[in-house]
Amino acid sequence: MSMEAVDLGRRARAASQQLARASAAARGAALVEVAALLRDPARQREILAANQADLAEATPGATAAFLDRLRLDDGRLSQMATAVAEVARLPDPIGEVVSTWRRPNGLRVCRVRIPLGVVLVIYESRPNVTTDAGALCIRSGNAVILRGGREAHRTNLALGALVAEGLRRAGLPEDAALLCPTTDRAFLRDLLQQHEYIDLCIPRGGEGLIRFVVENARVPVIKHYRGNCHIYVQESADLEMALDICYNAKVQRPGVCNAVETILIDKNVAPRFLPLLHARLSSAGVELRGDERARALVPDLTPATEEDFRTEYLDLICAVGIVDGLEEAVAHIEKYGSNHTEAIITRDLREAERFVSTVHSSTVLVNASTRFADGGELGLGAEIGISTSRLHAYGPMGAEQLTTTKFVVYGDGQTRT
Amino acid sequence: MSMEAVDLGRRARAASQQLARASAAARGAALVEVAALLRDPARQREILAANQADLAEATPGATAAFLDRLRLDDGRLSQMATAVAEVARLPDPIGEVVSTWRRPNGLRVCRVRIPLGVVLVIYESRPNVTTDAGALCIRSGNAVILRGGREAHRTNLALGALVAEGLRRAGLPEDAALLCPTTDRAFLRDLLQQHEYIDLCIPRGGEGLIRFVVENARVPVIKHYRGNCHIYVQESADLEMALDICYNAKVQRPGVCNAVETILIDKNVAPRFLPLLHARLSSAGVELRGDERARALVPDLTPATEEDFRTEYLDLICAVGIVDGLEEAVAHIEKYGSNHTEAIITRDLREAERFVSTVHSSTVLVNASTRFADGGELGLGAEIGISTSRLHAYGPMGAEQLTTTKFVVYGDGQTRT
Repeated sequence: MSMEAVDLGRRARAASQQLARASAAARGAALVEVAALLRDPARQREILAANQADLAEATPGATAAFLDRLRLDDGRLSQMATAVAEVARLPDPIGEVVSTWRRPNGLRVCRVRIPLGVVLVIYESRPNVTTDAGALCIRSGNAVILRGGREAHRTNLALGALVAEGLRRAGLPEDAALLCPTTDRAFLRDLLQQHEYIDLCIPRGGEGLIRFVVENARVPVIKHYRGNCHIYVQESADLEMALDICYNAKVQRPGVCNAVETILIDKNVAPRFLPLLHARLSSAGVELRGDERARALVPDLTPATEEDFRTEYLDLICAVGIVDGLEEAVAHIEKYGSNHTEAIITRDLREAERFVSTVHSSTVLVNASTRFADGGELGLGAEIGISTSRLHAYGPMGAEQLTTTKFVVYGDGQTRT
Repeated sequence: MSMEAVDLGRRARAASQQLARASAAARGAALVEVAALLRDPARQREILAANQADLAEATPGATAAFLDRLRLDDGRLSQMATAVAEVARLPDPIGEVVSTWRRPNGLRVCRVRIPLGVVLVIYESRPNVTTDAGALCIRSGNAVILRGGREAHRTNLALGALVAEGLRRAGLPEDAALLCPTTDRAFLRDLLQQHEYIDLCIPRGGEGLIRFVVENARVPVIKHYRGNCHIYVQESADLEMALDICYNAKVQRPGVCNAVETILIDKNVAPRFLPLLHARLSSAGVELRGDERARALVPDLTPATEEDFRTEYLDLICAVGIVDGLEEAVAHIEKYGSNHTEAIITRDLREAERFVSTVHSSTVLVNASTRFADGGELGLGAEIGISTSRLHAYGPMGAEQLTTTKFVVYGDGQTRT
């Protein structure tokens, strides 16, 4: 066990206690300072120099997409500043009386919102997560330990120093946002043992990283492995709307977890809809892979295997299946889905309600693109992650999902009989 | 891996999906049936016969207190029926729209309450947990796997059959409440691996059982190890009230987790209060163990060691310490406490608020007995357990804490730009 990992946890725990007792105004002020520092030309030069060094080291062997995720420039720093400033304007959740009631004996019971404590955020190449996750944790009164990807380490250290300075300027402990000094897996493994000091770990990234975290953690983990999202085009769907939504959900950004991966079409509308869908998606270079019934209607579809329906393509590929109705669609989603996001396109109110009440994925949409399954788009202000398991939080998580409640009880001498 | 354990998990999962889709009325009707069965004389005879067999086997070597916890009689069965009937009358939490808002693009976002899925409840000798926990899980739309103590196994099997019959009479799947066929630790260990089928495990009992569960579980666990509860008697306290509350918190039922274990007294009121407290608690046979400052005031107190302040006595023993003020009291609680329950006795509004905002135990009381840290007493209707860690639930847990929320989003063709 690395003493450095233990020490990091201990420092974060101490800072979390100070941060929880600080005022909402101080937490907000720290974020305003971080946003200002991200816009400071001298600081920008430091960060971009660190980023250049990371890029230079990563370039041999890295894909263009990878380097694009890693790269910072003036525009991206400005977007990061804007994102932090938006979190600074979010309502501070701490101290909120979530509910209150009086007991027959006169006791007044309150549930009061408090921070979780210390949150460990693990991520890969995107350096903006450093400031995004840092901001959400500070807003919600949590200390955060940030562990980014190896290739972005210099950039993340520079961004971490800037967040620490924002905290210091607002009179808050710098240790409330700690960057891991190393990206070693062994160090991460040690950190994942610190259940005395760390209240929650949120890993974001590829399935390999997430499985490593789950298998090695003794701290609670909230995560999702995959986003195998479905759209069900019901018989009564407005077909133009269905085409627009399917196109948006597949094409607008195919590499993300809320992109659609399988489209299920009601058999009564499939003869009209599938050729239109094929034409529309083909125009964007999407390869459609159909089950037997789909290929009976449009023979030049690639045949879809069982495996296709389990796959999160994250690419311009989409599986398509024909179903007899809502029940078969729901059964398909239950069998192959990942509890992430599913949508129905319908004009039938009753079918919409049946879908919504029988599909228990974390986000269920009616007549809207799966791409809205995102904390910012749903109005949470920003997103620290998405949970596809039910404990504590289910679906996109914002600042409020980084809190819990304690009971506060006011009496006047009551004793129990 | 025992295939029987896997099969138990799979059956519970299947039943949970049916239970979640059943109506609130059906879930309530099942509980009304269970309460009626508990009052049926023929059924009572069966259960009491099973209980007699358990008692006969346990008697050699068991303490009187243990046998008392294990024993059922007509009166206790009637209390169990009443408890189930009360849970039947609780509002059904499933389907509640917890919050809803509209986005600028017209999307209507709802957070809708859903069950967790499958809950594994592990407990020791008290057979009433079988019907209490079963009722709370059914009320909240969860399937439950019940694993009671070895000594109560025949009794629990009889009670489990009765709960299953209540479910069947209401047209719900019997598998929604499953009793473990065996109390073997190996079987329990296998069950604790079934993270595909079990969403939450709640162990209740001694620290040894709970540590076994935590160390062997691959399913999420919510628990508390100890209840090392404190009362801080602040300088301005109404001393009569303080005496009544300390007496109640220590003496009314010393063997439970919300009994007080340490009383901290402000130095300015200690010379008056400590002799009164000593007299009052001695009258009930309580042994007070004092720190040096306390023994300087009342020399015949037993000396308290560092270890005393860490101890959950669960007995007629109480540690007492003198502190310089609220800050020292809070620091003591932070050092020795277990995040369970703490109370302040004061007439000073500002001190009350300082205590409430700086002590982050799961239940914090002002001028009331620690014994109120209980789901029933706080108005949750009943209690499935108490959590002293912050994720998902913190403090006493009722039916609502056995649920989560999903996002339901209604649109009119929105796509993301």
